[in-house]
Amino acid sequence: MTGTLIGVGLGPGDPDLMTLKAARAIGAADVVAYPALPDTDSFARSIAADLIRPDAHEIVIEVPMTKSREPAQAAYDLGADRIAEALEAGRNVAVLCEGDPFFYGSFMYLHARLAARFPVEVIPGITSVSAGAARAAAPLTARNEVLTVLPGPLDSDTLAARISDADSIVIMKVGRHLARIRDVLDAQGLSDRAVYIERATLSAERILPLAQAPDPAPYFSLILVTKGSDPWL
Amino acid sequence: MTGTLIGVGLGPGDPDLMTLKAARAIGAADVVAYPALPDTDSFARSIAADLIRPDAHEIVIEVPMTKSREPAQAAYDLGADRIAEALEAGRNVAVLCEGDPFFYGSFMYLHARLAARFPVEVIPGITSVSAGAARAAAPLTARNEVLTVLPGPLDSDTLAARISDADSIVIMKVGRHLARIRDVLDAQGLSDRAVYIERATLSAERILPLAQAPDPAPYFSLILVTKGSDPWL
Repeated sequence: MTGTLIGVGLGPGDPDLMTLKAARAIGAADVVAYPALPDTDSFARSIAADLIRPDAHEIVIEVPMTKSREPAQAAYDLGADRIAEALEAGRNVAVLCEGDPFFYGSFMYLHARLAARFPVEVIPGITSVSAGAARAAAPLTARNEVLTVLPGPLDSDTLAARISDADSIVIMKVGRHLARIRDVLDAQGLSDRAVYIERATLSAERILPLAQAPDPAPYFSLILVTKGSDPWL
Repeated sequence: MTGTLIGVGLGPGDPDLMTLKAARAIGAADVVAYPALPDTDSFARSIAADLIRPDAHEIVIEVPMTKSREPAQAAYDLGADRIAEALEAGRNVAVLCEGDPFFYGSFMYLHARLAARFPVEVIPGITSVSAGAARAAAPLTARNEVLTVLPGPLDSDTLAARISDADSIVIMKVGRHLARIRDVLDAQGLSDRAVYIERATLSAERILPLAQAPDPAPYFSLILVTKGSDPWL
């Protein structure tokens, strides 16, 4: 009997925004795996820290942030091999995932490498989108409105077209693209409707009108734009 | 001192997919409010049932499902008045919300009526999108991919254009629009990449290739389409 690969969504950062199911899965895991930047404490591990068993075996997947994707691919190859070893030995492995495992999450890279060979369970998590909207008191989308989620690194023409076609827009991975994204929103007269959200639900959280956002912004930031003038009455 | 209006996201249906924060808020609430269809048990209440205090005061907001919006608006007016009474008396009111309060949720109608007058806290919830992807073992979106969420009642031309412009698509509120949506996906050669998901995480859950989906589908169903041919390696 092989073990089960469990992708555990941890939510945006506040440990209280883990689900009951995620908390239980972490507390029961004798093997946990998580990504970390080289020489940096893992953000995922920090969210779950109070629940990890002291005797749990920990698999750290050190993922370099490089322009070329090969180093990260090699890191996921190595991490998947180490997880596979534990699964083959019949142990369940809980992979700690910031946010939701299947929403811009690194779990997808492990899933792609392991799902054909082992049973998999995915525990969904609160996305930074839901958390950001909640913290900014900004309703996302109602009735027949269209929501589009856009990564900030997309080129400006693509961003402009997709923003124009949606009722509510979330722009992820803002980082060094902030000024360019602001120009795109300005051109459509949407800057006044845009909220900048950084590290939602963490103690370092910042929520600002877009005009006051830092440039460059940190990687874990997003911009939320809602066009709806109707207060959903 | 007035009370606080707390929008509590309950997630998709499995009570274990409530967050720790939501569970705590419900257990602490001496007033809970929730929507229900007339003469029908409230789905929101059923998710939270085991956590509601026996002595809690319950405000039921009976929302008729009519084509005209006026009856629902009147129901939210009345519900907001009753909630306001409790808040004015200094009691916190936990409003139980299926999924996420700000993602196609009825909480938005109460928020629009009460947020200017009372302190508000929103506890985000797991969306049916995250839950559906997890249960279908279907990664939603990675890297610089675009995700668009579309309500099924939109006209076919709008659906076709938005589907064509996104990498991953979630179509909500499928219901009686199923056959028409399938035609739109067929025309773009995407039916084979479409998964039908009904009542994700509940005991009545059904996950099927789109070709085998029931027509009409229930209201609480969605279709998930991912175009990515790259297994995110």
